[in-house]
Amino acid sequence: MNSYTVATLLKETKLQEIHIKGWVRTFRANRFIALNDGSTLQNIQCVVDFENTDEALLKRITTGAAVSITGDLVESQGKGQNVEVAVTKIEILGDSDPETYPIQPKKHSFEFLRENAHLRTRTNTFSAVMRLRSSLSFAIHKYFNDNGFYYMHTPIITGSDAEGAGEMFRVSTLDQKNPPLNEDGTINYKEDFFGKETNLTVSGQLEAETYAMSLGKVYTFGPTFRAENSNTSRHLAEFWMIEPEVAFMDLAGNMDLAEDFMKSVISYILEHNQEDLEFLDQRLFDEEKTKPQAERSDLRLIEKLKFVTENNFKRVSYTEAIDILRNSKPNKKKKFNYIIEEWGADLQSEHERFLVEKHFKCPVILFDYPANIKAFYMRLNEDGKTVRAMDILFPGIGEIVGGSQREERLDVLKEKMAALDIPEEELWWYLDLRKYGTAVHSGFGLGFERLVMFATGMTNIRDVIPYPRTPQNAEF
Amino acid sequence: MNSYTVATLLKETKLQEIHIKGWVRTFRANRFIALNDGSTLQNIQCVVDFENTDEALLKRITTGAAVSITGDLVESQGKGQNVEVAVTKIEILGDSDPETYPIQPKKHSFEFLRENAHLRTRTNTFSAVMRLRSSLSFAIHKYFNDNGFYYMHTPIITGSDAEGAGEMFRVSTLDQKNPPLNEDGTINYKEDFFGKETNLTVSGQLEAETYAMSLGKVYTFGPTFRAENSNTSRHLAEFWMIEPEVAFMDLAGNMDLAEDFMKSVISYILEHNQEDLEFLDQRLFDEEKTKPQAERSDLRLIEKLKFVTENNFKRVSYTEAIDILRNSKPNKKKKFNYIIEEWGADLQSEHERFLVEKHFKCPVILFDYPANIKAFYMRLNEDGKTVRAMDILFPGIGEIVGGSQREERLDVLKEKMAALDIPEEELWWYLDLRKYGTAVHSGFGLGFERLVMFATGMTNIRDVIPYPRTPQNAEF
Repeated sequence: MNSYTVATLLKETKLQEIHIKGWVRTFRANRFIALNDGSTLQNIQCVVDFENTDEALLKRITTGAAVSITGDLVESQGKGQNVEVAVTKIEILGDSDPETYPIQPKKHSFEFLRENAHLRTRTNTFSAVMRLRSSLSFAIHKYFNDNGFYYMHTPIITGSDAEGAGEMFRVSTLDQKNPPLNEDGTINYKEDFFGKETNLTVSGQLEAETYAMSLGKVYTFGPTFRAENSNTSRHLAEFWMIEPEVAFMDLAGNMDLAEDFMKSVISYILEHNQEDLEFLDQRLFDEEKTKPQAERSDLRLIEKLKFVTENNFKRVSYTEAIDILRNSKPNKKKKFNYIIEEWGADLQSEHERFLVEKHFKCPVILFDYPANIKAFYMRLNEDGKTVRAMDILFPGIGEIVGGSQREERLDVLKEKMAALDIPEEELWWYLDLRKYGTAVHSGFGLGFERLVMFATGMTNIRDVIPYPRTPQNAEF
Repeated sequence: MNSYTVATLLKETKLQEIHIKGWVRTFRANRFIALNDGSTLQNIQCVVDFENTDEALLKRITTGAAVSITGDLVESQGKGQNVEVAVTKIEILGDSDPETYPIQPKKHSFEFLRENAHLRTRTNTFSAVMRLRSSLSFAIHKYFNDNGFYYMHTPIITGSDAEGAGEMFRVSTLDQKNPPLNEDGTINYKEDFFGKETNLTVSGQLEAETYAMSLGKVYTFGPTFRAENSNTSRHLAEFWMIEPEVAFMDLAGNMDLAEDFMKSVISYILEHNQEDLEFLDQRLFDEEKTKPQAERSDLRLIEKLKFVTENNFKRVSYTEAIDILRNSKPNKKKKFNYIIEEWGADLQSEHERFLVEKHFKCPVILFDYPANIKAFYMRLNEDGKTVRAMDILFPGIGEIVGGSQREERLDVLKEKMAALDIPEEELWWYLDLRKYGTAVHSGFGLGFERLVMFATGMTNIRDVIPYPRTPQNAEF
């Protein structure tokens, strides 16, 4: 007797005496079980010979129950499937009380499913989203491995808060109520676990630079944190980031890498996750039908993915983009929430989307941003006012990737740190990279959940990570 | 003009006008540069025409300097390499002051290199270790992807401390000095970021079980934390864990999976990282030559890896193992530090290594441990005193993998939680898995750094992770 998963069984045509385990999605007409085991979006239909099955047993075949089935794989008589299992024996492994089981065979709100996040992958939508999340992760590792990058685990607990990318969470083992104090009344962090104040990392970039400057091409893929009280559909307190960093690569090379990388990982899921993507494409289309025309997407989900893989990314300087935006219809007619008036303005999602969706009609890479709206470590251009930064803009979402060539000149870097009151002692090791064998190098960051949102069409970031961490919520 | 990495250039034979960038490892006789760029352990020899090169430039070719070289790839006149670059042009990208550069071309102590962890991958040993770490990571993702597992990111910040695997780090944004208090004088965690007390996770297993019970086969690979004040060569406060979890799989299946998995990832590096492994094999052999005979390994590094891939893992019950140990020579002659006297004893590394290295002479899987030395979630056997746990024991290191079949019966699980004072409200979602469609399921955990130590022969865990976190140390 051979055991199968639903995915492997659906590839067969006719088999005697097979064995399969899974969970009942629905049980119809006392006869038709739709069985799912997570191996694919699809269920396999298992047909029970109800006339010769004990009534008490039939009653236990309920949504959510775990069952073990023996039977023959036969051609299906009904429509909707090619094959089905003619059940010869069914055993209930675990019951599921239909009175209390939260995941009924009906449409649940995403909010309800968030409260039952431990069960939500028992629905088609969330199992498809999480299979895609897994597939995207693998595509990322595969891309970098195939291209000679080394995966690096940068530290999660950090003693420095120098990057200034946002508010941080403190990590401590000190007595929260009666912490040890210094004579001047401040907290004595020498007695804390690490002998100093420590926080959760906001980025692995600075550490990744240290490895790029010896191993050449490296990347991180790990959790990062922001203690910002933003209760929006686009922010998480805990999220995953991908940060490649490459020695001897300038900003142009960085743009080439980022474009090739994004196209490659999206091509991977188009090739390997067709079934889940088609389901999510239809789901989004149906959902948007209930919305006013103006709020619907121009492109369906799979069209949006192909918009990325099939178009060249247009490279436009920040200065050009400001000119385009300033002269654009929505700016002149004051349709933008933030009117672009002069060079130096920080772009909002509405501006980014206008450039991608209306003006260029392709993914856009903006580069050479004003220095004062970007981070201290970005390479200052010869004009003294712009830095070699780049952002990639996608349809529907705006910025998805942000990167830069890094400041490799010790004196310029020190000046910029001084201007921002970043103490040199805190980043002595980062400065060492500019003292010993410095060279041009570049990298970028991609928020993984932003990519999963883009790839699945989910509009709330809490629905693309297994257990979201947000203000006032750390359940599960 | 074509650009190469050292790895790609060493595969060629004869080329005109090539371009290469890297860091100077050594500069000998004012003529021979050993150039490395991290793409491989090997350097490429670049031969400078010193008679026609400016003296000031020659002086700047120092260990650690970043250089850009143009030249022709030619057959090498010297021994030690097949090809070399006849330099036509050299440019110093970044100087490296030989008076202050910490990484001199000589043997440095590992302790010194830990203090310079931002530069230590500029040595052969650490670049080899970190390339292997990266390769093992990829082998792990590839194994699970090839075998139908989904990668799952379990939360890092957790509101529960129920697993009890060890002391935890608190995560908070409350004012450390003047935290808000309740009327009874306790800390008011409702005002903390997540509205409750939160910690850094010690394991993703419980959350992984939720996904296994819908998606079938999942795994985690993420950071985990222990706030234990253990300043040893085997403990880190922050380390990475791999935790697969599979529905409908019993303990025997779990052992099959773990054995196949370990053999597969080790075979992967034997196939893909031969050069780095040979270097580390020789390094360990040379190091051990300085030790007394009794402290040397019986097997060289690569032999130890093949000991795993070429032997079947012997499966032995805990009860049988206790009998073997009780009657063993080192036990009778009181050579063990911990003498095994009766059933129920927790095994130490010395016992595990005796079983693997002396008694069975192959990797060993011990199973069916006494319930009271194992975790609450492990499946109780019918004897009422043992649980379906298993540990895999390797030569030189002892336990490397620990796993179990999970308790799938709601009533038994509740009893065990009550006995340990674990409140049901904290794990309501974990109990739900036993209420709705419960089934046999199993999984295991592998500490990633333990695997990297085993695979590289490094004996201090601080030397196999980029930036180790240990008591009183969170530098970089």
